[in-house]
Amino acid sequence: MSNPSLLILPGDGIGPEVMAEVRRVIDWFGDKRGLKFDVSEDLVGGSAYDAHGTPLTDETMAKAQEVDAVLLGAVGGPKYDVLDFSVKPERGLLRLRKEMDLYANLRPAQCFDALADFSSLKKDVVAGLDIVIVRELTSGIYFGEPRGIIEEGNERVGINTQRYTESEIDRVARSAFELAMRRGKKLCSMEKANVMESGILWREVVTEVGKEYPEVELSHMYADAGAMQLCRWPKQFDVIVTDNLFGDLLSDAAAMLTGSLGMLPSASLGAPMANGRPKALYEPVHGSAPDIAGQGKANPIACILSFAMALRYSFDKGDEATRLEQAIENVLAKGYRTADLLGEEGKQPVSTSEMGTAILEAL
Amino acid sequence: MSNPSLLILPGDGIGPEVMAEVRRVIDWFGDKRGLKFDVSEDLVGGSAYDAHGTPLTDETMAKAQEVDAVLLGAVGGPKYDVLDFSVKPERGLLRLRKEMDLYANLRPAQCFDALADFSSLKKDVVAGLDIVIVRELTSGIYFGEPRGIIEEGNERVGINTQRYTESEIDRVARSAFELAMRRGKKLCSMEKANVMESGILWREVVTEVGKEYPEVELSHMYADAGAMQLCRWPKQFDVIVTDNLFGDLLSDAAAMLTGSLGMLPSASLGAPMANGRPKALYEPVHGSAPDIAGQGKANPIACILSFAMALRYSFDKGDEATRLEQAIENVLAKGYRTADLLGEEGKQPVSTSEMGTAILEAL
Ligand SMILES: CC(C)[C@H](C(=O)O)[C@@H](O)C(=O)O
Ligand SMILES: CC(C)[C@H](C(=O)O)[C@@H](O)C(=O)O
Repeated sequence: MSNPSLLILPGDGIGPEVMAEVRRVIDWFGDKRGLKFDVSEDLVGGSAYDAHGTPLTDETMAKAQEVDAVLLGAVGGPKYDVLDFSVKPERGLLRLRKEMDLYANLRPAQCFDALADFSSLKKDVVAGLDIVIVRELTSGIYFGEPRGIIEEGNERVGINTQRYTESEIDRVARSAFELAMRRGKKLCSMEKANVMESGILWREVVTEVGKEYPEVELSHMYADAGAMQLCRWPKQFDVIVTDNLFGDLLSDAAAMLTGSLGMLPSASLGAPMANGRPKALYEPVHGSAPDIAGQGKANPIACILSFAMALRYSFDKGDEATRLEQAIENVLAKGYRTADLLGEEGKQPVSTSEMGTAILEAL
Repeated sequence: MSNPSLLILPGDGIGPEVMAEVRRVIDWFGDKRGLKFDVSEDLVGGSAYDAHGTPLTDETMAKAQEVDAVLLGAVGGPKYDVLDFSVKPERGLLRLRKEMDLYANLRPAQCFDALADFSSLKKDVVAGLDIVIVRELTSGIYFGEPRGIIEEGNERVGINTQRYTESEIDRVARSAFELAMRRGKKLCSMEKANVMESGILWREVVTEVGKEYPEVELSHMYADAGAMQLCRWPKQFDVIVTDNLFGDLLSDAAAMLTGSLGMLPSASLGAPMANGRPKALYEPVHGSAPDIAGQGKANPIACILSFAMALRYSFDKGDEATRLEQAIENVLAKGYRTADLLGEEGKQPVSTSEMGTAILEAL
């Protein structure tokens, strides 16, 4: 049997430097745990544009469709702000999500004990926080047609379309209920059914799917109230399911609340492939942070934890994932901190690669 | 010269009880400061539906168009969840906003010193916070066509349309720049120009208007990053301008961060009328809180401060507005607290009407 395959797309900004540490971790699992991967690497985002004039070539897209999992760093940077919309770095990422049909984006917002002080929230509000936002990732206003900037009368009009079919809502709702079953059995669905018809359909379909999961306590919240409640008392939630655009804002807010932005991974999952594995892309929640790129300041943990999610969700290696997560907790407990996590006394400042080394040693 | 006119729409839930306290304040200004208003009262939201089968009658709409300012309590409640979309309580409020063309929604997020401990955020993150979100209120996905739930193939599809014309963006941007000029001269515009063409047009037009306000430091942020930054360090902002839907989520998050939700007023302003006053509707940021309605637990301050905003923005009585705001600060400093603000030791629990009385006494 051939090794499972991984496509690595470091992307822009701090992407390459955090991904370098992930590669060391992957190598460790190959050498020490007999978990060998066929790893290939390619370009996405601004770096792909610089090389090929497009943020994702057809060849890279085809490779992504073939591998068992894709690991992505981050895309974007001010250098590319002037580019036309159609070739912006983000389009590369959005094309991957859309063409791989990665409809369920799992974004854990977890507060690491050692880092609870980093939150802008009070310690008791975030300590021990462990929620997951399931964001629909392949539809909604990100992809709906018609879209564009048109002339109308004497002026221009910017148009985007939110569109959700019943089956699109149904499948992401199922992912969320399944996840809730494996966790605290509580699911909160967020939309603006008081204002948007697409939100009404969303609520209806989620409610319908919920009948198949009687053990899961389902609630509904308007997305604005959801934003409030996340800021007020995030521990009231277990799993949240919401659409692409609301999920973008709400998961970023939730991530920031934990104070551990440099620590948060994400998984984007699609339907099972022939080999039973879901189509999958793993990436850190943080962005490309161009301001600190290339300075050894970036925290590689979110990206390494994204690989841990890959072990768990794509390769059924929950034990190895836990081993890796445990190693990271140990390193934090010992006081190692990248620049984003400094501030307390008595901690050991480390660079991106020193953090990688510390994690390998803890493994 | 006849008195300026006010239309009072208490609405649902706690709306009527907080508005009762506002009426006492209005009477005080008439008796003691010679500021007489012609006050009329009418129904909106669920209470209008109960009486007339519509959340806003044409007669009420016509009255709202004629008066100098509208004061609204809150709309909505679980009782009305079963209603058809077209007659939900919210439609009454949305019709007022749309037909009065109240395009600029000013939502201050201010942290009251006496209440900084109520925030879920650390005290240094919120103490002294004073920002305003200017939310576009009459366009975008709230009102864009086509919209609805249609049949397509074998399934239903929920559709909403985000639409912004250049002139719609231009006018709300101007309101925001004008406000920034009167405040800290910093404006941050938020959209998703990396994903939505309507966001690209938004950014372009705001930038263009900005050329007429060279003194204002203009920045742009993606709305997801904006949600993050509001949670991380809200004091980095002065004025924020954003679209209807992003404004809905971001202003609610910002309001919650202050810990003073029961304290936050808002103003929705349109173009100047023949008498020079802008079309205007004032309402608290909080909702109708059906769970505590009728129990004397509601905090009337947000609604009273909405009247203070009316004094300032509609009636050019900034001094009287300050007098009222000062009275409220004094009452808080003395330790009076409605149920939502209890928790500290040594405070004086008061009911809705006792809070009203305390404010009148402080006046
Ligand atoms: C980079 C951008 C296109 C993307 C999004 O808006 O989805 C990012 O913010 C995210 O949340 O993954
Ligand atoms: C009640 C509802 C229609 C409204 C909105 O979504 O605009 C409310 O949330 C608000 O922010 O004023």
